[in-house]
Amino acid sequence: MGMLEIKTERTTNKKNQPDVDKLGFGQFFTDHMFIMDYTEDKGWKDPRIIPYQPLSLDPAAKVFHYGQTVFEGLKAYFNVDKRVQLFRPDSNFKRLNASNERLCIPAIDEELALEALKKLIRVDCDWVPAAPGTSLYIRPFIIATDPCLGVAPSKNYQFIMIMSPVGSYYKEGMKPIKILVEQNYVRAVAGGTGAAKTGGNYAASLKGQEIASKDGYSQTLWLDGKEKRFVEEVGSMNVFFKINGTVVTPELNGSILPGITRDSIIQLLKSKNIPIEERRISIDEVVEAFHNGTLEEAFGTGTAAVISPIGELNWLGEKVILNNGEIGETAQMLYNHLTGIQNGSLEDPFNWTVTL
Amino acid sequence: MGMLEIKTERTTNKKNQPDVDKLGFGQFFTDHMFIMDYTEDKGWKDPRIIPYQPLSLDPAAKVFHYGQTVFEGLKAYFNVDKRVQLFRPDSNFKRLNASNERLCIPAIDEELALEALKKLIRVDCDWVPAAPGTSLYIRPFIIATDPCLGVAPSKNYQFIMIMSPVGSYYKEGMKPIKILVEQNYVRAVAGGTGAAKTGGNYAASLKGQEIASKDGYSQTLWLDGKEKRFVEEVGSMNVFFKINGTVVTPELNGSILPGITRDSIIQLLKSKNIPIEERRISIDEVVEAFHNGTLEEAFGTGTAAVISPIGELNWLGEKVILNNGEIGETAQMLYNHLTGIQNGSLEDPFNWTVTL
Ligand SMILES: Cc1ncc(COP(=O)(O)O)c(C=O)c1O
Ligand SMILES: Cc1ncc(COP(=O)(O)O)c(C=O)c1O
Repeated sequence: MGMLEIKTERTTNKKNQPDVDKLGFGQFFTDHMFIMDYTEDKGWKDPRIIPYQPLSLDPAAKVFHYGQTVFEGLKAYFNVDKRVQLFRPDSNFKRLNASNERLCIPAIDEELALEALKKLIRVDCDWVPAAPGTSLYIRPFIIATDPCLGVAPSKNYQFIMIMSPVGSYYKEGMKPIKILVEQNYVRAVAGGTGAAKTGGNYAASLKGQEIASKDGYSQTLWLDGKEKRFVEEVGSMNVFFKINGTVVTPELNGSILPGITRDSIIQLLKSKNIPIEERRISIDEVVEAFHNGTLEEAFGTGTAAVISPIGELNWLGEKVILNNGEIGETAQMLYNHLTGIQNGSLEDPFNWTVTL
Repeated sequence: MGMLEIKTERTTNKKNQPDVDKLGFGQFFTDHMFIMDYTEDKGWKDPRIIPYQPLSLDPAAKVFHYGQTVFEGLKAYFNVDKRVQLFRPDSNFKRLNASNERLCIPAIDEELALEALKKLIRVDCDWVPAAPGTSLYIRPFIIATDPCLGVAPSKNYQFIMIMSPVGSYYKEGMKPIKILVEQNYVRAVAGGTGAAKTGGNYAASLKGQEIASKDGYSQTLWLDGKEKRFVEEVGSMNVFFKINGTVVTPELNGSILPGITRDSIIQLLKSKNIPIEERRISIDEVVEAFHNGTLEEAFGTGTAAVISPIGELNWLGEKVILNNGEIGETAQMLYNHLTGIQNGSLEDPFNWTVTL
């Protein structure tokens, strides 16, 4: 069976584009969006690009009540050859289907999704910002639309992609962040939805984030839900520690999101023969390494920041200072290498980039 | 400061009402809905009753991405005096605010909400079904509407109430249900959102429910997320066991929803001097009580069914049969007493009912 045809309806009313200095994150959206419907009898159907517009949903739609929703996040940007490029988009659609599986949402056609995304970017190519560090953030998401209050998987869905030009994450240069280790609230637990990219995980994280912000910390370090001992993630990023020359990151245990940046960093480290371990790591081990002087660096990884060096971890009031609060050399090196591959200034032996 | 004025805009296009035999649960909605907006600078404002209609939301609205949403569920019905009555509606709005607190959503005015609900029911009073066991199910809910993709609490919300005439839960008479004890998936964990009525908990539960259904079980019994040993809830109900003359229900430990039916049952049992314990109860204790012949009954409690007797629990393939698969006498007695208070045929010493 061939791929479904993707229709395009162009807007007759293009928006004024925002000033590149005022972009921020996820505040402005392009002129068009992609949308596709699912019904029980016809499956996914009618993929189309339409002018960016509000969704009209019955107030009983399941997404409003039972959180049956999944999403992804990836970026398009100009590479050094002035061509628009994506980074591992196939991995994002694959992960979207993994999230779908956990949330009882029917799988999408990953190939069709990538085709649709390319087409959408071409339609809105004048929205890809060109300033250094800026990019077009892409948000694919699926929502359950059945207007019925029974607690059960929906029979109808919409798969939507919207795009937002975003500013440079490091406008004022890369700067280590301060992290509060969360003691009471839990983001996810094994057997729950932590490994899926679904709304409920982020809803659960808001409270910890609020507490961290009040104390002047920019993100939360989440511990495991069972013993509150093992490190899981930092804010909406995966986390890495460098201890005595070895880089350690929590293993994918079912409650951690399998980050695409995380995977790329692991592959990069391996290619450089830098020791990398995926395993359980307790907060005690981190603090002990700090005490005995072997804790060299810590950093978060994610699509938004790529690498975010950690300058301080607050654990029960004790301040664990990393690399004197400065950017670590491994973090800097990995950032340079990965963004170099992403913008096409460095070779891409992994075949990660997709040029439009 | 006085209460905000609730405006009413009546529909000019009333719907045809569905056949009372075809009501089911949460499939049909009345002619009107209540809506109220929140903005950061003005707070909750503009409470109004309007014709039932779709919501128009930006595709970037936070509810679609980060699950920042809470809800409630309660019922209105005709009492024996043919007057419309609510059961402990104040408790629902109080719990809604408790959920709001966990989800970083600004509190609503509980008194205003109850006034609004009464007004809405009066406007749609011809929708309250009269057949025995039927009722008008009310769904208050709040959604985060900021069209912005940053992971942070929304600055704008909508508080909405919709109403659905629902059929009798026990059309063919009360019948014990078969329950599968879930071994792998987890609904909630202490420190998470289990004690709040928020979408993510229900999203997390769909998979377990799917597995149970495939094996011919009607609901999942959820164990705690830490040790997968302690009983938490059954489907979307709280759970009670009668062991050797004492009724036992899991204590409110932070991952269990504090059910209003649960609380009412506890108060009823106390008033009858039937021993009731709120404490941790492991699945091993339940199975052991079954083996030594002291497991007398088990039942779920919730607004939809009031009491749902459990006839069988499947634990790792072992079938724990309760009261020979028949309705237990405590379950039947509690059902009769509580529904009697609810429909006004029995005295209400607790002041639970609110007549319109
Ligand atoms: C909870 C969470 N962890 C980790 C990540 C990092 O994943 P990725 O590297 O694929 O962006 C994200 C998303 O960005 C996330 O939301
Ligand atoms: C998860 C869950 N537990 C328990 C209950 C029972 O609560 P209530 O008795 O207030 O209806 C509900 C809601 O009905 C629920 O959704």
